[in-house]
Amino acid sequence: MTEIRPNEVLRKKRFGGELNEAEIRAFVRGVTEGTWADYQISALLMAICIQGMSDRETLALTLAMAKSGDTLDLKDIPGVKADKHSTGGVGDTTSLILVPLTAACGLKVAKMSGRGLGFTGGTLDKLESIPGMNVNLSVEEFKRIVCRVGCAIAGQTAELAPADKVLYALRDVTETVDCLPLVVSSILSKKLAAGCDVVVLDVKTGSGAIMDTPEKSRKLAEDMVRIGNLSGRRFSALITDMDQPLGMYIGNALEVEEAIDVLAGRTAGPLRDVSLTLGAHMLRNAGIAPSVAAGKTMLEEKIASGAGLAKFAEMIEAQGGDPRVCEDTGLLPKAPRRVDLPAPDDGYISAIRTADVGNAARLLGAGRLRKEDAVDPAVGVVMRRRVGEYVRRGEALLTLHAGPRSDVTGALNLLGRAVSLSREKTAAPELIHAVVE
Amino acid sequence: MTEIRPNEVLRKKRFGGELNEAEIRAFVRGVTEGTWADYQISALLMAICIQGMSDRETLALTLAMAKSGDTLDLKDIPGVKADKHSTGGVGDTTSLILVPLTAACGLKVAKMSGRGLGFTGGTLDKLESIPGMNVNLSVEEFKRIVCRVGCAIAGQTAELAPADKVLYALRDVTETVDCLPLVVSSILSKKLAAGCDVVVLDVKTGSGAIMDTPEKSRKLAEDMVRIGNLSGRRFSALITDMDQPLGMYIGNALEVEEAIDVLAGRTAGPLRDVSLTLGAHMLRNAGIAPSVAAGKTMLEEKIASGAGLAKFAEMIEAQGGDPRVCEDTGLLPKAPRRVDLPAPDDGYISAIRTADVGNAARLLGAGRLRKEDAVDPAVGVVMRRRVGEYVRRGEALLTLHAGPRSDVTGALNLLGRAVSLSREKTAAPELIHAVVE
Repeated sequence: MTEIRPNEVLRKKRFGGELNEAEIRAFVRGVTEGTWADYQISALLMAICIQGMSDRETLALTLAMAKSGDTLDLKDIPGVKADKHSTGGVGDTTSLILVPLTAACGLKVAKMSGRGLGFTGGTLDKLESIPGMNVNLSVEEFKRIVCRVGCAIAGQTAELAPADKVLYALRDVTETVDCLPLVVSSILSKKLAAGCDVVVLDVKTGSGAIMDTPEKSRKLAEDMVRIGNLSGRRFSALITDMDQPLGMYIGNALEVEEAIDVLAGRTAGPLRDVSLTLGAHMLRNAGIAPSVAAGKTMLEEKIASGAGLAKFAEMIEAQGGDPRVCEDTGLLPKAPRRVDLPAPDDGYISAIRTADVGNAARLLGAGRLRKEDAVDPAVGVVMRRRVGEYVRRGEALLTLHAGPRSDVTGALNLLGRAVSLSREKTAAPELIHAVVE
Repeated sequence: MTEIRPNEVLRKKRFGGELNEAEIRAFVRGVTEGTWADYQISALLMAICIQGMSDRETLALTLAMAKSGDTLDLKDIPGVKADKHSTGGVGDTTSLILVPLTAACGLKVAKMSGRGLGFTGGTLDKLESIPGMNVNLSVEEFKRIVCRVGCAIAGQTAELAPADKVLYALRDVTETVDCLPLVVSSILSKKLAAGCDVVVLDVKTGSGAIMDTPEKSRKLAEDMVRIGNLSGRRFSALITDMDQPLGMYIGNALEVEEAIDVLAGRTAGPLRDVSLTLGAHMLRNAGIAPSVAAGKTMLEEKIASGAGLAKFAEMIEAQGGDPRVCEDTGLLPKAPRRVDLPAPDDGYISAIRTADVGNAARLLGAGRLRKEDAVDPAVGVVMRRRVGEYVRRGEALLTLHAGPRSDVTGALNLLGRAVSLSREKTAAPELIHAVVE
């Protein structure tokens, strides 16, 4: 077999042609092995952005990327293995809630997570705010804990889809991030390499999401579910609102605290609703619940009985963390300083610009700009009000939890503009826009 | 002024927007100064290829590239300064003919040439086959010779349009060479930087040209003349045939020999016709001849009188070469070995695949694959027949002039397939397809 040269592939896509499997495999091999130069990769990424990709191409790209490094074999774990992925938002702590809850229902949840660049840390950073917690598990430890406890959340110790790492780094600096086939293949390739049978996707939409309109988010969700199902696994997607932070707590330890509050049955609201809906789809897709409604009921029972919280404690302990945080959130790191942002006027909250809230949390130290930055587990923002609620002038809209490295002035500036008030009552945004199966 | 970032420019062009002057200048500055990474440059080149560029964008790109390095100031040379540019073909020796001929009519011809990668060497390589000839002139020497003799041909000693060098190297490896606005700005920027008032472009069309159809060639010619004239200089273009080699001699010393034969009035045919037409446009555009027809008559007189050949000898002598080659082409390097390619059958020559003839010349050692390759001045191909002519089986179609490093077998293989015979007489291809002014 003669190797397919970069120029042939570039020319074909430049003129809008459909790349065949061999051409896509040659590209991914070139990316992984370094035989394609960065400037050739980025030229093809740009051509893909403009000319698009067919389903066949996107599937081939996804599969080639999934096979570009290690793939996890979870066959020796009995039962259906499930995973969940969110496209990322602010105050989005659903994983910490639904992973132990669905595991308490008998699902095997093997969640590989990223650290993520962005507003706040990723799921791993949140978990690491729990004293002693270890998210750097070997593949064998990870599988052993999933087998014994029913769930584990760990970083990618295995080199899953290394081609994605190269492509993402280039997309980030060439304005080719928000390109559907590239987003789809990036997310799905890692999920396929991680080896689960069932994957539920949470596609965020709104001012704090990659896709800012419901139409774009729906297209992304549809593409991911269609391509994901073509790969032979079972995928579903929910399109959920990110036009305001999902939970009320934004920050690392703060989000763990809110997750524990939900698992303990102390907190209701959108974060709980979305977590239960996502979890119910996982149970239904895995065949554990006969329907989504039945799955939801099962999950609610696990909250009421305390089994979900107990499972979270069990997982924390298995991963070396202090399980007592589940009973006493006072054991989590606390920020030394609280600053309220008062409402400038009477009125209804008409909008909360989620991205600004996220950026404010980052200025406080909850997230990172560069991969090598450290996060402060204690800092963040606690929202006191949601869209549609009435506030009186001077009343706290939100509270900053600040640390020694926090840029409080910068965060307050951003947040002051993030919340809009109106004389008219605004309806709260719809929480779950659509389900795509 | 805040610097415009690569991402802004990339995003705009990705979505088909028109870049403004400031954005294009920021791009060219980034290319020249190295602040744009290769992968960002190549992503933008691909976006430009697919989304295109308006005239305004192409003009801005051309001007920014022209100003990216040195620019030649020819104001202290009295008279109208003219230049000529060919998009490149096989057996295309027009420069060596029209430069001395038009100079003999009083035009100042300041021709900066490239070495060129390709089938045969560039004009510089051809000139260097003349014993003693120096094409590496300083800017001052170059101008002095143009002033005194009326013409000079030299390599780019000044760093003209360095941005083009960077862009061309990346275009070459990302399949973005044949993109009109990039071709236009690449050619025009160097011509503008070289400082002439009048430029005549020879756009080749056919199997041995960058643009293989008359439509694409016409579009390139029209774009170059339009953008070139917008820059304030006077541009014209001819679209000329490259569906067979223009001259009968292909190689470095071989082409010098044919140019001398034309200047001496010993050789007629397409090479002479195209050279005179291009030269006549230069004279007309410079105001030396009242019309193209009158210009042609002037040039024919300079052949008849021997003034053109004398001017060539004068230029050669001024550049250190042996002017006696003009009287005795036997002084040029000669290949040690001649091999005829016989016609396989009786018939009319229906087609000559020009690119194959060019590649055969390269296999013999007349051209280079890599910048650092040396050319053999003596080797090449002498065509014995043209399209439309009748040959008998066994009669020589062409003769190889081979040297010690020549791949004769490879060249013969290529050439055997390059010439097609037919029972029916084929009309000779039209020589000058169009004039664009």
